[in-house]
Amino acid sequence: MNRIFTLLAFIGVPMIIIGSVMDWPDIPIFIISCISIIALAGFIGRATESLAIVSGPRIGGFLNATFGNAVELIISFFTLKAGLIGIVLASLTGSVLGNLLLVLGVSFFAGGIKFKTQKFGIHDARYNSGLLIFAVIVAFVIPEIFTQTMDQVDTVTLSIGISIILITLYLAGLFFKLVTHRGVFSSADTNKEEEEIPEWSKGKAIIILLLSTIAVAYVSEQLVHTFETLGEKFGWSELFIGVIIVAIVGNAAEHFSAITMAMKNRMDVAVEIAVGSTLQVAMFVAPILVLLSLMMPQSMPLVFTIPELVAMITATFLVINLSNDGESNWFEGLTLLAAYVIIGIGFYLL
Amino acid sequence: MNRIFTLLAFIGVPMIIIGSVMDWPDIPIFIISCISIIALAGFIGRATESLAIVSGPRIGGFLNATFGNAVELIISFFTLKAGLIGIVLASLTGSVLGNLLLVLGVSFFAGGIKFKTQKFGIHDARYNSGLLIFAVIVAFVIPEIFTQTMDQVDTVTLSIGISIILITLYLAGLFFKLVTHRGVFSSADTNKEEEEIPEWSKGKAIIILLLSTIAVAYVSEQLVHTFETLGEKFGWSELFIGVIIVAIVGNAAEHFSAITMAMKNRMDVAVEIAVGSTLQVAMFVAPILVLLSLMMPQSMPLVFTIPELVAMITATFLVINLSNDGESNWFEGLTLLAAYVIIGIGFYLL
Amino acid sequence: MNRIFTLLAFIGVPMIIIGSVMDWPDIPIFIISCISIIALAGFIGRATESLAIVSGPRIGGFLNATFGNAVELIISFFTLKAGLIGIVLASLTGSVLGNLLLVLGVSFFAGGIKFKTQKFGIHDARYNSGLLIFAVIVAFVIPEIFTQTMDQVDTVTLSIGISIILITLYLAGLFFKLVTHRGVFSSADTNKEEEEIPEWSKGKAIIILLLSTIAVAYVSEQLVHTFETLGEKFGWSELFIGVIIVAIVGNAAEHFSAITMAMKNRMDVAVEIAVGSTLQVAMFVAPILVLLSLMMPQSMPLVFTIPELVAMITATFLVINLSNDGESNWFEGLTLLAAYVIIGIGFYLL
Repeated sequence: MNRIFTLLAFIGVPMIIIGSVMDWPDIPIFIISCISIIALAGFIGRATESLAIVSGPRIGGFLNATFGNAVELIISFFTLKAGLIGIVLASLTGSVLGNLLLVLGVSFFAGGIKFKTQKFGIHDARYNSGLLIFAVIVAFVIPEIFTQTMDQVDTVTLSIGISIILITLYLAGLFFKLVTHRGVFSSADTNKEEEEIPEWSKGKAIIILLLSTIAVAYVSEQLVHTFETLGEKFGWSELFIGVIIVAIVGNAAEHFSAITMAMKNRMDVAVEIAVGSTLQVAMFVAPILVLLSLMMPQSMPLVFTIPELVAMITATFLVINLSNDGESNWFEGLTLLAAYVIIGIGFYLL
Repeated sequence: MNRIFTLLAFIGVPMIIIGSVMDWPDIPIFIISCISIIALAGFIGRATESLAIVSGPRIGGFLNATFGNAVELIISFFTLKAGLIGIVLASLTGSVLGNLLLVLGVSFFAGGIKFKTQKFGIHDARYNSGLLIFAVIVAFVIPEIFTQTMDQVDTVTLSIGISIILITLYLAGLFFKLVTHRGVFSSADTNKEEEEIPEWSKGKAIIILLLSTIAVAYVSEQLVHTFETLGEKFGWSELFIGVIIVAIVGNAAEHFSAITMAMKNRMDVAVEIAVGSTLQVAMFVAPILVLLSLMMPQSMPLVFTIPELVAMITATFLVINLSNDGESNWFEGLTLLAAYVIIGIGFYLL
Repeated sequence: MNRIFTLLAFIGVPMIIIGSVMDWPDIPIFIISCISIIALAGFIGRATESLAIVSGPRIGGFLNATFGNAVELIISFFTLKAGLIGIVLASLTGSVLGNLLLVLGVSFFAGGIKFKTQKFGIHDARYNSGLLIFAVIVAFVIPEIFTQTMDQVDTVTLSIGISIILITLYLAGLFFKLVTHRGVFSSADTNKEEEEIPEWSKGKAIIILLLSTIAVAYVSEQLVHTFETLGEKFGWSELFIGVIIVAIVGNAAEHFSAITMAMKNRMDVAVEIAVGSTLQVAMFVAPILVLLSLMMPQSMPLVFTIPELVAMITATFLVINLSNDGESNWFEGLTLLAAYVIIGIGFYLL
């Protein structure tokens, strides 16, 4: 798998450079960009993990938590720069839905086919479900409802306030998990750390992380410019491109590793990747983008469309209910996938 | 009780035939139809149970699950045929509310008066609550929100897609409960099966099932035509007739058996009847009706009114919260009944 | 602390009398009224507790439960009499939010700084979460949604019906907790009762209770008349005054005792004060005010504004999720406080 990724990255990135210089049509650029980003995401993931192992559990956890959605953040940044605020909010929605329903659904289902019942830590599940409710039900719903009679200035003020609170609470959560309540959470992690040896040395990892990030940034900028053509050619709405297409490309790396872990019966890690990545998008990537947008001509409020918000709320309630007992099976996975398909059809027809 | 039912059925059905030929006024037809259907529902229930015992646990479970709401399905079919889509959706809502709040409420309350605390299987409760959230919060809410800006064609497309997914997941759930994860669920059922002897032989049960179903169909058709007069005479809205009247008549059999079981301290069975019947209505009867309506002049979308949807959502959250611990008492029953009364007053005044 | 309260009450109340006779400006009247009410609330709390100990656990529990929000009820009564229905509903919202997010948040946080993990009874937590869902999600949401197409008369009828059901269920809940299922709930209470000796004799307690209540009533009437000026001077909306200012003054006593208990690692009592007080406001104070308003020129329906309702719903889901495991820590406290700040900013900007 890693070899294929290396090959794809080393072919894809030069092709995009040539294509953008020679002004190739948008559809091949779109396809090559998507493949290249998925391949590069693999490199970023491996480099981050190597650095995390070298740096010890605390800084390592912090690195994983902040670099985990680097690709997502970079694509969104360039989409934001292009003024496509609707697609940014849609792709954030898509990340939340993709991680909660698709990644977790496939993990539960694929793992559940091999193992009758799989278990994961109840403490982690409760920590995650508390923050999911905080982020989706409180921090995303309040601006939606309260800004309906507000003017533009107050809407931005409320968005900034909520963004700062989200980032603060996210960092406080890392402090809680990695420092003050470290022993309380699953001991599986501790065992894992002991055996693990980093794939790359510290220096090599930093260089690869740097180069891959620059490459992702370059490719993302080309990708973003194909969206308009894509919508016209296939009749896809901004919403559908953001929620389904961008979200799947931006999260391909998480999808792959979560499912691999589920098949190895390490459901703890699979859930942590899927739900942890959701929380990162909702409590870190989204507010960072809101704050970054203040330096751009058009600022992005933290106000989703009603369908986006309702999709995230229903997904949150379903996932919390299915995961709160610390057990999973194939049928729970199928239920999550069925919810993903229903919401997908909804966004396609919208 | 069974004797009275036999008597009522053997008097009621001929009276309806005579009444419809002689063109009796609507009010007596309405009353006699309701009583006859309740009596016939008893026969269908007993015939299904006899067949289920003869066929062994797997096919038996399947029979119970599919024939359990036969009466509901037949009444709704004729209401649909008469073009009264509003009453069909209202009676589906009423079934969900009646089973979740009224049946479960009376079971918890009546059982709780006799026994201080009653227990039922936590695995079953979790399975049920996951599907309740899937059906009511995901599959019913998404079309409501997403179709608000959609045209008629897309609304029907979305309804069909969701209906197919609901039926598929419902059947997958039966496969999960009856085949792959049979041992995991409450062993109470297994004990029950061993002792049980069928009331009727296989042949007799099939004939009774067939005759009762035909009779219910005939009576339902007469019943449906009285709704308009009923609304005019008593000032009842379509919504109130559907949510309260049709729902209580269509589910009388479940009401009776759930409460009997609760009084015998077999709360497992009572909860299974009430919540199982809800899931059947939401995941099987409702989508089947949506698909059947495609062959009629006017197709029925899976789009409830806002009050119907909100009533179902609030009932779902209340029931999940009260039942997730696998324990019940009289006060939890009273809470469910209080919610039913509040919602009932609301629909009456609407 | 008690001495300061005595001093404040004995200075504040005469000042208000003088001020109202001499027609002082509204801002000093507002500040002195707030301080006096907080001080008097301390007296009412101590008198009620003394009476509760003397009367034995059952009547004591009942006394605590009904007199606990006396101050809140009195302020709201005079606000209602002044025709400021918007502020009454806002201050009820503010009490619910203040108790659930602020009081519980500070208790979890402050207690969690001293103790790594604090525990409280799971039976109590489940009883509370069931009633929270009943009150906020069912009894407050239904009138909001159903009255949108209703005329004035039906809206009042529905409000009266729901109010009577809320009060009945609240009293039934006391009967459940104090009589039929007494042993089931946390034994911590029983131990507590044995050691406790009343601060004041029965006669003294009754006199203090009576005098403080009269004083609170008098001061509240003066306080209410300052609201209009307050809004004009500081640009605060009716909503903000009700949700934040009145709610904090009306619940200061609870805030203080809950946090004290949390710091002593008696999280059972702290949660009982915070959530118990919420339930009292939602299921007893609010419906009583609806019924009292029928004797006034303008009756108050049980219909909150959408932002008020959404804020209460999101707070309810967050608290239920964080408290259902019977454990708390500093990070859960911080999460609750973050939600309070987000909602507070929202109401300020509205």
